[in-house]
Amino acid sequence: MKSASQRKDRVVLDTSLFVNPEVRGDFGNTPTEAINEFLDIARQIPALEFYMPSSIFRELLNFVNEKEIPGALLAVLRQKSPGKHEMTCPAFFLYELIEDIRDRVNKGLRIAEKAVRTAGKSEEQEVIQGMRKNYREALRDGIIDSKEDVDLILLAKELDALLVTVDLGAIKWAEKLGIRWLLPSKFKEYLLSFIEKEE
Amino acid sequence: MKSASQRKDRVVLDTSLFVNPEVRGDFGNTPTEAINEFLDIARQIPALEFYMPSSIFRELLNFVNEKEIPGALLAVLRQKSPGKHEMTCPAFFLYELIEDIRDRVNKGLRIAEKAVRTAGKSEEQEVIQGMRKNYREALRDGIIDSKEDVDLILLAKELDALLVTVDLGAIKWAEKLGIRWLLPSKFKEYLLSFIEKEE
Repeated sequence: MKSASQRKDRVVLDTSLFVNPEVRGDFGNTPTEAINEFLDIARQIPALEFYMPSSIFRELLNFVNEKEIPGALLAVLRQKSPGKHEMTCPAFFLYELIEDIRDRVNKGLRIAEKAVRTAGKSEEQEVIQGMRKNYREALRDGIIDSKEDVDLILLAKELDALLVTVDLGAIKWAEKLGIRWLLPSKFKEYLLSFIEKEE
Repeated sequence: MKSASQRKDRVVLDTSLFVNPEVRGDFGNTPTEAINEFLDIARQIPALEFYMPSSIFRELLNFVNEKEIPGALLAVLRQKSPGKHEMTCPAFFLYELIEDIRDRVNKGLRIAEKAVRTAGKSEEQEVIQGMRKNYREALRDGIIDSKEDVDLILLAKELDALLVTVDLGAIKWAEKLGIRWLLPSKFKEYLLSFIEKEE
């Protein structure tokens, strides 16, 4: 039961799909290869529309050789920012975000205190590097911590799209907003399943 | 031109008005005294309705002698939480919050690194205390950092009320949401101006 007027399903993509070596592997050995492979597959799937927030697309351009990216990419992977001045988010979201951050900030301080106590006993640079790692994990992992992350989840919300990212923070907050998401390791299989259907 | 059906203006109060000694001074020497003085004045102002988020009212109860608080307080100072499951906030608010937090988190790490580098040269406990102070200032001042803060600004928004608080974080974010606010040091004068008008 298909009709021409049936709305296409939408997919919002993160850069990580093409940049993160663990995920990119399915598509290619370099970001440029991965994008071209994605493009080849995506063009064969009329049932899906692909989107990427403009801020994230700009990030992607830092990783690829622009000359090797065919112009067709821009027709297949649409750049669009969420309507951040029209959109709203539920107020409870704000509560959860603030509470989460508050816990993390306290944790960050405890990590710093521990580092100061260790400082006399170990090599300074080592202590600092260990602290940086722990601090960043405590304050950043599993949280939306950049405007690019916010773009990603708001765009998926606005378009009622499927979100494909490896960012655990974005996934966690996408779930709070009722956004569908896909394990990025299954993304290529997901795409191929549409081509098999068409045939 | 007054009519019985004219909506009363609403005021949302923070605990700090009664607890913070610098602001409370106008009303009394102890939180309990300050509340009773406020109550005496507020009862004479039929034109205003006073509200306090329930979470903040609970905080207030930690500072006062409950037996000395007259039951009339509950009639004058209404406890109400914002409708956090119905309310929404503009999406740009989320962007500004995330960007602000990101900057602060980076600043927190630099403060911690500096402390580790100083650790060998000064007394450990002093270094830790200095770091705690700087860290808290960097990560908490001027930001909404608790669910009580969120309650305060969302309730003011929901009721289209005047917000009275000393919390700079709440004031800053209230401004972003178009909420009116009043310098807490002028709160008593503000109240008295209504009584003079009545007379």
